Amino acid sequence: MTQSSARKTVQTDKPPSAHVLKLPLEHARAEREPHSYERWLVAKLMRMAGSPPIRFKLWNGDVIEPEQQPAEFTLHLSDPKALYSLVANPNLAFGDLYAAGRLDVDGHLPDLMEILYRSVHQARQKWPKWLDALWRNHNPRSTGLSEARENIHHHYDLGNAFYRLWLDRAEMQYTCAYYESPDLTLEQAQLAKLEHVCRKLRLKPGMTVVEAGCGWGGLARYMARHYGVTVYAYNISREQLAYARETAKAQGLERQIHYIEDDYRNITGQYDAFVSVGMLEHVGKENYPVLSDLIRRSLKPHGLALLHSIGRNRPMLMNAWIEKRIFPGAYPPSIGEFMEICELGDFSVLDVENLRLHYAQTLSHWLERFEAHGAEIADMYDDHFVRAWRMYLAGSIAAFRAGSLQLFQVVFSHGDNNELPQNRRDLYQTPAAPEEH
Amino acid sequence: MTQSSARKTVQTDKPPSAHVLKLPLEHARAEREPHSYERWLVAKLMRMAGSPPIRFKLWNGDVIEPEQQPAEFTLHLSDPKALYSLVANPNLAFGDLYAAGRLDVDGHLPDLMEILYRSVHQARQKWPKWLDALWRNHNPRSTGLSEARENIHHHYDLGNAFYRLWLDRAEMQYTCAYYESPDLTLEQAQLAKLEHVCRKLRLKPGMTVVEAGCGWGGLARYMARHYGVTVYAYNISREQLAYARETAKAQGLERQIHYIEDDYRNITGQYDAFVSVGMLEHVGKENYPVLSDLIRRSLKPHGLALLHSIGRNRPMLMNAWIEKRIFPGAYPPSIGEFMEICELGDFSVLDVENLRLHYAQTLSHWLERFEAHGAEIADMYDDHFVRAWRMYLAGSIAAFRAGSLQLFQVVFSHGDNNELPQNRRDLYQTPAAPEEH
Repeated sequence: MTQSSARKTVQTDKPPSAHVLKLPLEHARAEREPHSYERWLVAKLMRMAGSPPIRFKLWNGDVIEPEQQPAEFTLHLSDPKALYSLVANPNLAFGDLYAAGRLDVDGHLPDLMEILYRSVHQARQKWPKWLDALWRNHNPRSTGLSEARENIHHHYDLGNAFYRLWLDRAEMQYTCAYYESPDLTLEQAQLAKLEHVCRKLRLKPGMTVVEAGCGWGGLARYMARHYGVTVYAYNISREQLAYARETAKAQGLERQIHYIEDDYRNITGQYDAFVSVGMLEHVGKENYPVLSDLIRRSLKPHGLALLHSIGRNRPMLMNAWIEKRIFPGAYPPSIGEFMEICELGDFSVLDVENLRLHYAQTLSHWLERFEAHGAEIADMYDDHFVRAWRMYLAGSIAAFRAGSLQLFQVVFSHGDNNELPQNRRDLYQTPAAPEEH
Repeated sequence: MTQSSARKTVQTDKPPSAHVLKLPLEHARAEREPHSYERWLVAKLMRMAGSPPIRFKLWNGDVIEPEQQPAEFTLHLSDPKALYSLVANPNLAFGDLYAAGRLDVDGHLPDLMEILYRSVHQARQKWPKWLDALWRNHNPRSTGLSEARENIHHHYDLGNAFYRLWLDRAEMQYTCAYYESPDLTLEQAQLAKLEHVCRKLRLKPGMTVVEAGCGWGGLARYMARHYGVTVYAYNISREQLAYARETAKAQGLERQIHYIEDDYRNITGQYDAFVSVGMLEHVGKENYPVLSDLIRRSLKPHGLALLHSIGRNRPMLMNAWIEKRIFPGAYPPSIGEFMEICELGDFSVLDVENLRLHYAQTLSHWLERFEAHGAEIADMYDDHFVRAWRMYLAGSIAAFRAGSLQLFQVVFSHGDNNELPQNRRDLYQTPAAPEEH
């Protein structure tokens, strides 16, 4: 694909780079000597972060070594204001400064971020209350009907040409893959994920499936093609739906798949299966009762439902930078909050699987391809955009590796449904991944 | 075994039949005509229960047919007082009256109970508040250190000779079996359960395992024999431990298994695996923080923990009769409450499986054997005891079939543990059940 066609595809009503990066501070490189209290601030900051093996290199070349162990990474700070914003609001500033090139890293970014996640997770238990209050993340923005459209547009309408550069070439899956074995390619693992989901839903030819948040429509096409079901797939991202419809038509699946541009809250009808892969993160806690009620209404008496979502081990607000710059309105539920959705609907939880490390591997594959297309992406957007997305992908790898994020697949049924699979043996009778792709 | 030796084994400090059945009302068969308001009460009671297909036959032979559908079952009431106590507190009185022979049933008891469970579950959503308050179950009694001993003694020290009559002959498992295929015998399914649990814990020779609430010690012996691990198994039921120790010794496993007569709260040390099958129901919600903290302390950094417990789809108090007469202190957690244990300890939930219908089948196998030994058991205790236990087993079958009870197996690890199984494929590579037993 030429760059001009890529540029053309990303024409949406707002220029993406403008709303992805609203940097709060002007770039201001300084040459002056750091004050002694600035050196003290750096040392204090590192102590509050649990004294990770990180060296600071300040704007004038001064180096501040970690206190407790030899440095494994070097953080470069370009100016005193960068230091102050880091101290005032590290969750937000770290990503912003990195994206702006005012904070830089020597060493493997995901590894650094993992060490930071683990170190801060331990250290924050000893923070004084005022610091916890100062540095806390904030409630995500609203996910009402109109805000949800804005939130989704912000991220998912960046342009299909962009996502095509680094997602799998099989079905453009922008969710956790399933590495049935660790050496699978991204394409194999994404197809294995689709197969694994279909098996968990025990799909049979002739069934109807409703999908909430269908992305580029890959799961719907897989279900229609391999399981002979009819799919009603909802999405509010126009860019994604355009691709989904076009691809389904090219594959002759348009009679089996109804791609519907609407909010999940407007789903009507009753189906043999309800599935949602990677939407719950965007639903917002305040909408769990609505979602639960919706599934209750739209699932036939003997139907199975599957929700696949990023989650947490305990309730925690989304990282401020991710929520502000990357995923507005995002909130990954804790496993307990996830179960609330099931409890509200009087559902019976049948199966929970955690694919946390699979998401770290998926993201590593994405980051590798993203970097391979770095120059191209910088041409499509700009350097800020490339650095912000590198931070987002690397930080996400780290969060899954450090156990800050989880990936839950939850299967459930109506509470009084006795037409259940005998056990889970049927999921594992043959490999889920294709041999090659 | 002769009856005299059976009698001998059940000698505990309280005579079991006395504390199992404290009947609140004297048996009082009446011949008099029912008053018109008594007939009205029966009709009202049935309407509040959702108008199930049940006919009432009163003490004088009068019959009251169900209003909305033909009767499938007949309930016999022996006296007016039985009716009044049923109206005042049906949850408690139904079991008590049945045990006393003042309420009787034509038809298959588990089927009747399942229909009642389903019908009441629907109907209670429309109950007026005063009725919900009148008929509600009450908080379970305390599960503090000394009360827990009392609670466990009440049920599990009824005598090994009694349980031996109707539990599986393989390992005396008094917990849900795993019917890998529906036609397994009870023995095969119980061994398959043990194997399934061991696989989920990914046991390897040389590992150490701590077990909280080990029953008659079957899981510990299975783990030691088939997986070459060393087990520290805790229990506060003296009767069970006597059997467990004797059996381990007879099998030459006494060096690999340490059966410890102590409360789970007194577990010390660190282990490669933490397992508890069928104890959580007796722990009590107020002790979840203690349990969570205990697992956190006693699980090595890369260890796996498994909790197997009866549960609920949403929080609900235990049926009054079961809590009062059968399992004092029992409280099955909702799936959300179950997850609280994991959230409190910052654990990562890896796998949840629901074996609800497996427990219905297990209980059916138990009830069948229990009935086959009915006369023997009546000789060991008395008719009250037999009828009470028949109601308990039949009611439990019904509760699992109707979806009022669930059976959750939950596997979890420390939140920062990355030495995790790649997926669950290894659980299903070969059958878990032995071909014959």
